[in-house]
Amino acid sequence: MAVYTEVSDEELDRFVAGYDIGAVLSCKGIAEGVENSNFLLHTERGNFILTLYEKRVDPNDLPFFLGLMEHLASRGLGCPLPVHDRAGATLGELAGRPAAIVTFLEGQWVRRPTARHCALLGEALARMHLAGGGFERRRPNALTMPSWRPLWERSAARADEVATGLSADVEAELAVLERDWPAEGALPFGVVHADLFPDNVFFLGDRLSGLIDFYFACDDMFAYDVAVCLNSWCFEQDLSFNLTKGRALLAAYEAVRPFEPAEVAALPLLARGAALRFLLTRLYDWLNVPPGALVRPKDPLEYHRKLRFHRAVDDASGYGWSPR
Amino acid sequence: MAVYTEVSDEELDRFVAGYDIGAVLSCKGIAEGVENSNFLLHTERGNFILTLYEKRVDPNDLPFFLGLMEHLASRGLGCPLPVHDRAGATLGELAGRPAAIVTFLEGQWVRRPTARHCALLGEALARMHLAGGGFERRRPNALTMPSWRPLWERSAARADEVATGLSADVEAELAVLERDWPAEGALPFGVVHADLFPDNVFFLGDRLSGLIDFYFACDDMFAYDVAVCLNSWCFEQDLSFNLTKGRALLAAYEAVRPFEPAEVAALPLLARGAALRFLLTRLYDWLNVPPGALVRPKDPLEYHRKLRFHRAVDDASGYGWSPR
Repeated sequence: MAVYTEVSDEELDRFVAGYDIGAVLSCKGIAEGVENSNFLLHTERGNFILTLYEKRVDPNDLPFFLGLMEHLASRGLGCPLPVHDRAGATLGELAGRPAAIVTFLEGQWVRRPTARHCALLGEALARMHLAGGGFERRRPNALTMPSWRPLWERSAARADEVATGLSADVEAELAVLERDWPAEGALPFGVVHADLFPDNVFFLGDRLSGLIDFYFACDDMFAYDVAVCLNSWCFEQDLSFNLTKGRALLAAYEAVRPFEPAEVAALPLLARGAALRFLLTRLYDWLNVPPGALVRPKDPLEYHRKLRFHRAVDDASGYGWSPR
Repeated sequence: MAVYTEVSDEELDRFVAGYDIGAVLSCKGIAEGVENSNFLLHTERGNFILTLYEKRVDPNDLPFFLGLMEHLASRGLGCPLPVHDRAGATLGELAGRPAAIVTFLEGQWVRRPTARHCALLGEALARMHLAGGGFERRRPNALTMPSWRPLWERSAARADEVATGLSADVEAELAVLERDWPAEGALPFGVVHADLFPDNVFFLGDRLSGLIDFYFACDDMFAYDVAVCLNSWCFEQDLSFNLTKGRALLAAYEAVRPFEPAEVAALPLLARGAALRFLLTRLYDWLNVPPGALVRPKDPLEYHRKLRFHRAVDDASGYGWSPR
């Protein structure tokens, strides 16, 4: 739940007057999103989302994120479209923060995705990977393999406070991933979402209406994005893996963008890496809750259990994959 | 910031299908309000507010609150209008909570009210007091004078942790208020809002668009409601009292519903009572922050300073009052 920055009505009116979207009718902070402050802005021209970028986002990355949304939307992908101000810019400043207005994407995220949702997700993810082609900006993934050890070192000393044996287990896992992680160029590479959890995917009735929150998007292996989704969509509440959901996701992805054999072979390892990435960021947040925090930290052990599942997977058939 | 209860999309769709407002297009938790969970619900028929009543609200009071909003709206007061479901009810159940859908009220609350805003507020408050006439339900004020001592006793032992001398000061104040508080019937009485802080009053451009959050509304002295507003609207950030704002509020109220002389005479005492009421509830919340709380408690000492100001006020001219 997140509104970190208060915006006065005068400031807001002045900011919105810079856009051709009519006058402000209402503006309410939204209790979702943990990185930035988001407001549902209703103007004479309709509903928009106003985002104030808080300190966890590097302002230098904003042209990548906003440009990517514009690029993807222009290729027909459902996602918020940044609104240009009267001077043509999509990035402004409000209440001392970088700020942007994007179009409102209808739909709701699903708390308990079904196999049908996983199939729609797989299709949309593949379409996003294809639609990212031709986007001219580059952004390396700041949270991929080489970053994991430095991140781990900030939590290592206290990891066993969270679970006995966690420290040794992460060390062993890191050693494997550092040894076996695919070299750059070994797998198809392009713009990935990198955080496509259920709360970033909207559905409207029977269809997927779009993807949101591109603030971890970057250049990485497409199959890594698939591995993030296997982690975040295909486990049940009790952390058992639902093979039907995995199969639905992978088959629907394949139907739009066929996997290369090397991608299929790498899936278990990529799924381990994705699980470790979320384990490590959650562990750090868990151990470093700022006083007065408005956001409950997420349980890092959820991803430890998922990681252990992936270690027991021999090949992609363990996720429901079968060649066509 | 408050969304205490998660609602699944299936539950929500089923709930909304009970109303004649079209299908759900989106539903986002709002980061405002501290008592209940509020969602901005967008359906095929427009924008609505969905409220889930959490444990601090007595379900037996809900017919009063919802009925009052309907009564006031029917008398032309700007406020959310409860939507009736297909069976005619305004109160339903969702995710195990009492729940209601109300119309969306356009406008924004002002972070720094000007004298002009205070005048518009005074006028709207008087109109609300008149519009409440004829409302058939009754609800005693659960947070007026007789409740203060029991509330105080739950914090008294630890009050000096918050400020040295606070305990003795509250004791002395309570003794005065218990002795001098107006007897029932001594002052004009009716339905009051009882919590009309700036975040419960919306403005749209140059006009006041309406009042929200009637969940403390009750039967009490009209002048007590005025005293709550003097406390919450007319002090500056540095807690100095702005006489121009007080004058604007009182004069605009008077123009719609003239004060009786006894109300004017009682204003300083009622203002002390209102300040003590917010001091006591804030003090209790301050000393009893639940673990994992998502809401920062408000500073009780703000109202201690306001209370001290009121003690030095001899008569209503100290708030800017002057007879016409």
